[in-house]
Amino acid sequence: MKNFADRLLDTITEKNSFLLAGWDPRMDSIPQCYFELAATSCDSNASLIRHVLVNFYTDALLASKDHIVAVKPNIAFFEALGIPGLRAFNDLCSILREHNVINIVDGKRGDIGSTAEAYSKAYLGTEIFNADALTVNPYLGLDTIESYLDHCVANGKGIYVLVKTSNPGSKDFQNLKLINGTTLAEEVAVKIQDLSQKFIGEHGVSAIGAVVGATYPIEATNFRKLMPNCPFLIPGYGTQGASSADAVASFNSKTINGIVNSSRGLFSSFKNLKITREECKLEIYQKAIDAKNDLMSAFRQIKN
Amino acid sequence: MKNFADRLLDTITEKNSFLLAGWDPRMDSIPQCYFELAATSCDSNASLIRHVLVNFYTDALLASKDHIVAVKPNIAFFEALGIPGLRAFNDLCSILREHNVINIVDGKRGDIGSTAEAYSKAYLGTEIFNADALTVNPYLGLDTIESYLDHCVANGKGIYVLVKTSNPGSKDFQNLKLINGTTLAEEVAVKIQDLSQKFIGEHGVSAIGAVVGATYPIEATNFRKLMPNCPFLIPGYGTQGASSADAVASFNSKTINGIVNSSRGLFSSFKNLKITREECKLEIYQKAIDAKNDLMSAFRQIKN
Repeated sequence: MKNFADRLLDTITEKNSFLLAGWDPRMDSIPQCYFELAATSCDSNASLIRHVLVNFYTDALLASKDHIVAVKPNIAFFEALGIPGLRAFNDLCSILREHNVINIVDGKRGDIGSTAEAYSKAYLGTEIFNADALTVNPYLGLDTIESYLDHCVANGKGIYVLVKTSNPGSKDFQNLKLINGTTLAEEVAVKIQDLSQKFIGEHGVSAIGAVVGATYPIEATNFRKLMPNCPFLIPGYGTQGASSADAVASFNSKTINGIVNSSRGLFSSFKNLKITREECKLEIYQKAIDAKNDLMSAFRQIKN
Repeated sequence: MKNFADRLLDTITEKNSFLLAGWDPRMDSIPQCYFELAATSCDSNASLIRHVLVNFYTDALLASKDHIVAVKPNIAFFEALGIPGLRAFNDLCSILREHNVINIVDGKRGDIGSTAEAYSKAYLGTEIFNADALTVNPYLGLDTIESYLDHCVANGKGIYVLVKTSNPGSKDFQNLKLINGTTLAEEVAVKIQDLSQKFIGEHGVSAIGAVVGATYPIEATNFRKLMPNCPFLIPGYGTQGASSADAVASFNSKTINGIVNSSRGLFSSFKNLKITREECKLEIYQKAIDAKNDLMSAFRQIKN
């Protein structure tokens, strides 16, 4: 089974893009035309929700897939829509697989022993949601992170461990100074780099990655030094305030060693808009190209 | 809306129990009779899974509800069963509400801003799963914890923040020493105690609680001092190795200020067993009484 990091890096090369499309479904940001379409065939609100989500995000996928390296559905938003939302999530996981698009589920899961194995089975096993990678929370300790590794090896899957998140409150605990002079997030980074060594692919990058927010570019440069083999998942670009230059701060001049998420930047301008599906797809297509080019241009600035 | 902590403490008094029943569904630990029953009415594996889970846990609820203070479904195990598991979870949330049994969803969720609000809507809102409380992870910072508080106030819901978990690896990060001389978990505890002050009910206990493992009883005593107003959710009793005396280590002689979880201790001996539903219910009933009495007896030891 091909290493997750190799699949990721080959896709970055193939698509010449390191843009990650974040799917954070909010019903009120989906254009009216998807509701009208669903109303013609759905006899309940539950089936309408599922239908709208599946159609909108399938269109979004078709419009953007040549310009994005992967999709990151944040499962919180699907859970907030209950069973219809989760059924749409399940449908979309299958659709991503059919289209051969890398699916990084943003669940920020974390639990102990057999419970973490249950999360691993759900997202990184091949029988349930069968995603390609999962974001996980390190607070419970390394034994809880290790629960995901069997599926990473057996199924060519990956994990991204939260190291430094993009929100203002990330300082509260992640930036706490330890007696050894490092911060908590740096300590997590060192441990994740250690763990990553057994999972390094042909490109020298590991299937064990790290979430490092674009909103703290100076810190990101430091985290890159601490985790030379870990692919980064970089949130915070765009709506959260980080520029494309901030987002690539951890890159060196030769290598694209991270993927940069955009959620609201790609998908959140459709509130109450009376546009057609084709117009919607065209807008997502254009925004994906713009974001991809904005990021690639920032990367070229480093190279020059 | 009545404060979550008041509802919890009134229920402890009413039932004379501080036993929390952990629901961690593993299909292979449910007695054969539930599969035979489901097979008579289910035409797919998906409906069979849902049917088995709902019937088994409804029976478990009816058998134990006079002797438990609350139920703690761990959503990881439902997610590992895919959509049928999640539909069963949804059904069981409704059934717990119909039976007026407190439902503490063990999701260990944690995300930023609007995403944390989506988790809050899913579990602490009244429209989706409508549980009574949710376990949450502090790694992302206090602004992420604050996202749950509106629902705690508006709907009388609660949260339990992970402070010190019961697994061996909890030492990796939670026990790290900070430059101020405390550990990370102690720092989280101090911050959660601060946060808890605005949510204190009539009994002097807050709707903001903490997860503190029974497997570290000496540390638990310390955490009780740091968080005098936070109700504890105490995992690790039984199968994970903690005794009833360990589980009540943080209690003082007058007050039951925590609830103690048992999952595998109550539900995991049914593997391949050919027993009837009535025999199964009787066994769960007896185990719940035994665990309740074991814990209450340990509490009385402190009083004497």
